[in-house]
Amino acid sequence: MMMIRPRLQPIQSFFRPTPLTRSLFTSRPRPRSPPLTFLPNARPLTRTSIPNSSTRTTLTSNQIPRRRFHVRSIPSSAFAHKYPVTTICLRLVLSTVVGLSVLTAAILFHDAFTYSERHVDRVPANPLSLHPRTGGKKNLPILEVNLDSEQVEKQAMKDKPRLVIIGGGWGAVAVIQSLPAEAYNVTLISPSTYFAFTPLLPSACVGTVEARSLVEPLRKLIARVRGHFLLGAAVDLDMAERLVEVEVPKDQGDGTTRCYVPYDKLIIAIGSTSNDHGVKGLEHCFQLKTIPDAQAIRRRIMTNLELASLPTTTPEDRKRLLSFVVCGGGPTGVEFAAELVDMMAEDVLKYYPRVLESEVRVSVVQSRDHILNTYSEKISQYAEKRFARNEVDLITNARVSEVTADKVIVTIKDPNDKNAKPKTLEIDSGFTLWSTGIAMQPFTKRLVEMLPNQYHSKAVEVDSYLRVEGAPKGTVYAMGDAATVHTNLINDLMTLWDKYDKDKDGTINYDEWQEMAASIKKKYPLTGKHIGKMRDIFDQYDKDHDQKLSLNECAELLQNLSSKVTSYPATAQVAAQQGKYLGGMLTKLSKQYKVLRANDMPDLDDEMYYEPFSYRHLGSLAYIGNSAVFDYEGWSLAGGLLAMYAWRSIYWSEQTSMRTRMLLMLDWVKRGIFGRDLSKF
Amino acid sequence: MMMIRPRLQPIQSFFRPTPLTRSLFTSRPRPRSPPLTFLPNARPLTRTSIPNSSTRTTLTSNQIPRRRFHVRSIPSSAFAHKYPVTTICLRLVLSTVVGLSVLTAAILFHDAFTYSERHVDRVPANPLSLHPRTGGKKNLPILEVNLDSEQVEKQAMKDKPRLVIIGGGWGAVAVIQSLPAEAYNVTLISPSTYFAFTPLLPSACVGTVEARSLVEPLRKLIARVRGHFLLGAAVDLDMAERLVEVEVPKDQGDGTTRCYVPYDKLIIAIGSTSNDHGVKGLEHCFQLKTIPDAQAIRRRIMTNLELASLPTTTPEDRKRLLSFVVCGGGPTGVEFAAELVDMMAEDVLKYYPRVLESEVRVSVVQSRDHILNTYSEKISQYAEKRFARNEVDLITNARVSEVTADKVIVTIKDPNDKNAKPKTLEIDSGFTLWSTGIAMQPFTKRLVEMLPNQYHSKAVEVDSYLRVEGAPKGTVYAMGDAATVHTNLINDLMTLWDKYDKDKDGTINYDEWQEMAASIKKKYPLTGKHIGKMRDIFDQYDKDHDQKLSLNECAELLQNLSSKVTSYPATAQVAAQQGKYLGGMLTKLSKQYKVLRANDMPDLDDEMYYEPFSYRHLGSLAYIGNSAVFDYEGWSLAGGLLAMYAWRSIYWSEQTSMRTRMLLMLDWVKRGIFGRDLSKF
Repeated sequence: MMMIRPRLQPIQSFFRPTPLTRSLFTSRPRPRSPPLTFLPNARPLTRTSIPNSSTRTTLTSNQIPRRRFHVRSIPSSAFAHKYPVTTICLRLVLSTVVGLSVLTAAILFHDAFTYSERHVDRVPANPLSLHPRTGGKKNLPILEVNLDSEQVEKQAMKDKPRLVIIGGGWGAVAVIQSLPAEAYNVTLISPSTYFAFTPLLPSACVGTVEARSLVEPLRKLIARVRGHFLLGAAVDLDMAERLVEVEVPKDQGDGTTRCYVPYDKLIIAIGSTSNDHGVKGLEHCFQLKTIPDAQAIRRRIMTNLELASLPTTTPEDRKRLLSFVVCGGGPTGVEFAAELVDMMAEDVLKYYPRVLESEVRVSVVQSRDHILNTYSEKISQYAEKRFARNEVDLITNARVSEVTADKVIVTIKDPNDKNAKPKTLEIDSGFTLWSTGIAMQPFTKRLVEMLPNQYHSKAVEVDSYLRVEGAPKGTVYAMGDAATVHTNLINDLMTLWDKYDKDKDGTINYDEWQEMAASIKKKYPLTGKHIGKMRDIFDQYDKDHDQKLSLNECAELLQNLSSKVTSYPATAQVAAQQGKYLGGMLTKLSKQYKVLRANDMPDLDDEMYYEPFSYRHLGSLAYIGNSAVFDYEGWSLAGGLLAMYAWRSIYWSEQTSMRTRMLLMLDWVKRGIFGRDLSKF
Repeated sequence: MMMIRPRLQPIQSFFRPTPLTRSLFTSRPRPRSPPLTFLPNARPLTRTSIPNSSTRTTLTSNQIPRRRFHVRSIPSSAFAHKYPVTTICLRLVLSTVVGLSVLTAAILFHDAFTYSERHVDRVPANPLSLHPRTGGKKNLPILEVNLDSEQVEKQAMKDKPRLVIIGGGWGAVAVIQSLPAEAYNVTLISPSTYFAFTPLLPSACVGTVEARSLVEPLRKLIARVRGHFLLGAAVDLDMAERLVEVEVPKDQGDGTTRCYVPYDKLIIAIGSTSNDHGVKGLEHCFQLKTIPDAQAIRRRIMTNLELASLPTTTPEDRKRLLSFVVCGGGPTGVEFAAELVDMMAEDVLKYYPRVLESEVRVSVVQSRDHILNTYSEKISQYAEKRFARNEVDLITNARVSEVTADKVIVTIKDPNDKNAKPKTLEIDSGFTLWSTGIAMQPFTKRLVEMLPNQYHSKAVEVDSYLRVEGAPKGTVYAMGDAATVHTNLINDLMTLWDKYDKDKDGTINYDEWQEMAASIKKKYPLTGKHIGKMRDIFDQYDKDHDQKLSLNECAELLQNLSSKVTSYPATAQVAAQQGKYLGGMLTKLSKQYKVLRANDMPDLDDEMYYEPFSYRHLGSLAYIGNSAVFDYEGWSLAGGLLAMYAWRSIYWSEQTSMRTRMLLMLDWVKRGIFGRDLSKF
C-alpha cells in the first residue's frame, strides 16, 4: 500500500487541506497505518511510536501523518466523540452541500452545451405535402405525405403501413410508447398539443402541483417513433376508402378547414366528454378534464377569495362566493374537494381576512348512498369520516336537477322510504364543478351511428381484440373511455353451436360444453370470473337434467353470462393497458409482416397471431385531504400522511417522462417549503 | 475514545454496514485503534496482533474491528490506488447521492409538518368592515376598517398613520420591504394579486422560465408589515378629504363598484401603459407588460407554429404565420426577439417540420439608428452583430405607421438624406409585439389634470422628495414609471435669490453663487452632474464680466441648467430605489413621530428630517441570444455564455423571495436538461 502512495500524491495535493478544511474533513490526526506484513521492509510506525504531540512536530515531512481528502467527519475527534449525533448530522449536511454543489456544477456545465445558434438549412419540402391532392367522397385534400416527411422518413418508411391514432391521452400515448421506432408510419391527431397526466388535475386546480408539471408535448413523444403530429379533431370516417376526415384550425381565429388522413390501421383513443344527464344550466359549471379546465378553476377560486375579501361585498354575496359545490362523488369530485379544503386550511386562510374562514363551505353532491361508490365500503366510510372532520358537506342520494349562475338545485330522495316525496334543496354556489360520469365525444357518436352493430349508449363497442364491431376487420380499433368491450355472447351462439356440437346431435353435452367454455373464456376474458365452475353452470342451465344443453338452454346460458359481465371502468389504468396491448399487437404484427406476406396471409386477422385483451386491475386510489385510500381486489388501505406519500409514489412512477417526474417532485417539495402560490392568473 | 464507544453504539448499529455498504463506505478493514495511554487497563490490540485472517475470525464479537459509518472512499483501497481519479469521481457521485437523499428526506420530513386540517374558528368581523359607512363627495362607502382588521390589528395599530400604496410593482414592493412591521396601517391597492419580476417576462414568453416563477403574491409580501390588500384600481383622488377613490370588482363578471380608501400618506406607484404613438391598429398587437401578456404571447407563438405545420396551410400563410415582428428596439423588444430566436434554434425546430426552419423570420423595427440606443455604442453594435448572425431582420430609422391583422406598415427614413421621401415597407406578420415606450395610466392622467403645476406629458411631476407637485405637502408621493422628478429650477428663482443675495445688493457674487449652487445640488441631486465646475458656470453666465450675476443672468443659468438635466429612465431599477427611499423616509418618520408630536411639529415636512432622493445607477443589462450585455457608466461588457450567466446571477439576486429564486434556478436547470416545454396552453 505504501508503495503506491506517490501515485496518489498529485490528487492529494490538489485537495491539500487547509487548517479549516482539515478540521472539516478529518476527524483527528490519523497515525500512519501499521505496516502490513507483506511489506516487511517498511519502517513500522505505530501509535505508540508517537507518544506525544511534541514528538510529532519533529517528524520529517515524509513522516507527517498524511491526511487524505475524506468526507469523514466534520469536527475534530474530541468533538465527534462528545457529540456523536451532532457529528453525524454535520457530516450529512456536509455531504448534502458537497453533493448539491457537484450536481449544480455538473448541470451548469451540461447547460453550457445546450445553447445553439440559429442556423438555417434550406430543406425543400415534398411538393405533395405543400399542395396535397384532393379526393375522397367530399373531395378534400388528402394528406398522403406529411410536411416533415423529408426530415423523418427514410425511403423505407414510405412503404410502412400507415398507423393513425386519434387522441392524445392515456391510450394513445401508451400505444406510441410501446411501438418500436420506424415500424409504422404513425400520425397522431389531437386537438391539444400535449399529453396531460389527468389523475393529478385536481391538485393542479389549487396549485399543489403546477399545470406545466403534468404535461408532455405529443411532438416529443411521437418523435421517438419518427411519427407525425396533426393538430385537429377527427369528425368523420370513410371506412371503405380508409380515410379519416379531420377538422383542422385555419388561421389564428376560430376558422377551420377539413382534410382527409389515409390509414391502414386506425386507433380511436379519443376519450370522453362529461355526461350532462339532461341537467339544465351546465354552462354555469366548470369541468375538470383538461389543463385549461384546471387553470380556469384555479383562477376562479382565487377570484372568489379576492371578491369575498372586499369590504364592498355584502355578507350574503360573500357567503355565496365562498360556497363551492362539487356535483359528483367519484374520485375526481372527491379529490378536488379534498385539495380545496387542504388549500383553504394550509395556505389561503393565513393571508386572507379571517372572517372568510367561517364562511368557506365545500359541498359534495352524490347521487348514491356513499361517495367513492366504486371503491370498497371501508374506503367509502373512511373518506366520509374524513370529510365530516374537515367540515365538507356531503349530500348523498341527491340528484342535481338544475344549475343556475349562483345556485345548484338538488333533489334528495329518502333512501329508507322509496315512496316519500323527494325534497328539493337550493345550494347557493359561487363555484360549481360538474364531474358526474362520461358521455361520447361527437366523433364516437358519429361512428356509432354509422355502424350496424352498435347498441351501447356511452361508448363504441369493440370485441376482445379492441376491434370496432362492424368495422372492417383489423383496420379500426378503439379503446379507453371511447370504447367498451363487447360481451354480447348471444351473437356468437350459432358459430359456437356449429363449432362445438361435434357429434352433430343437436345438443351440447358436458365435454362439448367444456371446450366451448374454454373458447368463450379465451375470446372474452371479461367472462373468466363468471365461468369458473363449469359443472355448476352446466347443471344450472340443463333444466331437464338430460346431461345435454339444447339450443334454447345454451342461448339462455350465454345471455345470462353476458348480462353478468360488467365492462371495464372508464379509467386511465384501463386506457393505458389497452394502449400497451394494441402497441404490443402492432409490434408483433410488424415483425411478422414479412412472414405473413410470404405466406400470402392477410395482416388483418389479429386472432391469428395475438391473444385477446385482458385487463389486470392494479387497484384504485384516491386522495382525501392529507390522506389517501387504496383499493385492490378486496384488500384496502386508508391512512394518513404515509398513505398520501404512497399515493404520490404511485402517480410519480406512472409519469410518461423523467421531466414531469422531476417537475412533480419539485412541486411537492415547493409546496412543503413555501406553500401554494396564491397569485391569480 | 474507547470509553465512549458504548454511547456511539446505537447509532453505529443503526448504520451497521452490510457487505455491500461496507465496500462502498469503507476503504479497507480498519484495525481497532491502538489503545490510548490514559486507558492503561484496556487490552492493547495492534495490527500485528492480527497476523492473518484466520486469527481474525476467532476474535470475540467485542474484539471484531469496528467499521464505523464513514463516507470515506467508495471502492477498496487497491481500487482507489489503481484508479485515483475514478475513485474521486465515485466519491463525489456518492456524496451527491447521499446529499440529495438527505436533502429529500429532510424536506419530506419537514413536509409532513406542513399539512394541517381545516379547523374553523368563528371570528366575528368588525361590523364597520362588513357595512362601511358612506361619505365623501360622491357618497361612496369609506373603507375605514379592513375586513382583516380583527386578525392583524392590535389596538395600537388603529392609531398608526394610514399609508396607502397604489400599485403592486417594483416601487410598491420596495416600499413594503423597507418598512418596519406595524409602523403604519398599510393598505396596498392593486388590480393584480401578485408582484411580477418584469425583466424576465421575455423569457417567460417562450418558456425559458415559467410565469409562476416570476410572481410573488402581494398578500404574502404585505403580511410582514401586517398590511391589507385591496384588489382594485385607483380612479380618482380627493386630496382635501384624503380619500382615494377605488374601483373594485363586483361579483364574478365584469361589473365594478366604487369605494373610498382614506389615507394619511399616499404613494402612487402605479406604473405606466404602452405608448401608442398615435398608431392605428394596435389592437392587433401583443404587449409585454404583465404575466397574462407573456402567457398570451406564448400561446400565440405555439399556435402559429402548429398552424404553420399543417399541410392544409398555404405556403403564403405559412410564411406569414412564421413572421414575428417586434416594434421597438429597446431592452424588452430586443430580449424578446433574442429569446424567440433561441427557442426556434434550440427546441422548436427539433420537433416541427424542417420546412418551417427556413420560413421563420424575426424582425425588429426601431425608430432610431441603432437598437438599444440608451446603452453605449459598443453594446449597440455588439447586439446588432449578434442579431445579424442569428438572421434577425433589423429595420432601423423606421416608424410603424399602421398595424393590421396580418401586416405591419413601416415608414423608413434615409438617415443620410433628410430631404429624401421616406420609403414605405409592408411586413407580413403573424405576430406583432408593441414595446415602444411608456404612457400615463388613466389614474396618473386624472391626477395631472387635477393639479395646477403639472406640465409633463408622460408622468406626474414630483419634487426631489418624490412629493407630487401641487399636492398638499407630505401626503402624496409618486414614483417609478408613474413619476418624473421635476427640475424646473426657474420656479425656485425668487426663493433662491432672496435667500442667497445675502448682502442685498441685487446681484449674486461668486461666494453667494457657491452657496446657492450647493443648495441647488442638495435639493436637486439630478443637477449634480451639470453643476460640477462652479467657477466656469459663473463665468459663462456672467456675460458682462462684472463678477456678479444679475437677476436675468441668474434666471438664464437656472433655465439652462434645468434643460440639461434628463429625468430618470423608466426602469425597474429606478422604481426599486425610489421605493426603498420612500420606505426609508417613512421608517425614519415613524421613529420620530413621538418627538415630532412632543415638539408640536408637523409630520409633513420631509425636508426637515430626510435627504432628497438620489439615484445611483447600477448599470443596464440585456440578454441577446445566448449572450448578454452590461453597461455601467461608460464601462461596458458584452460576451457569450459567461456574460449570460452573469446576467442571470444579477436577476437572480434581485428576486423578492427565496421562493422565486429557487424556482428560477430550477427553471434554468430544467431548460438545460429537458429544453423548453412546447405544450400550447
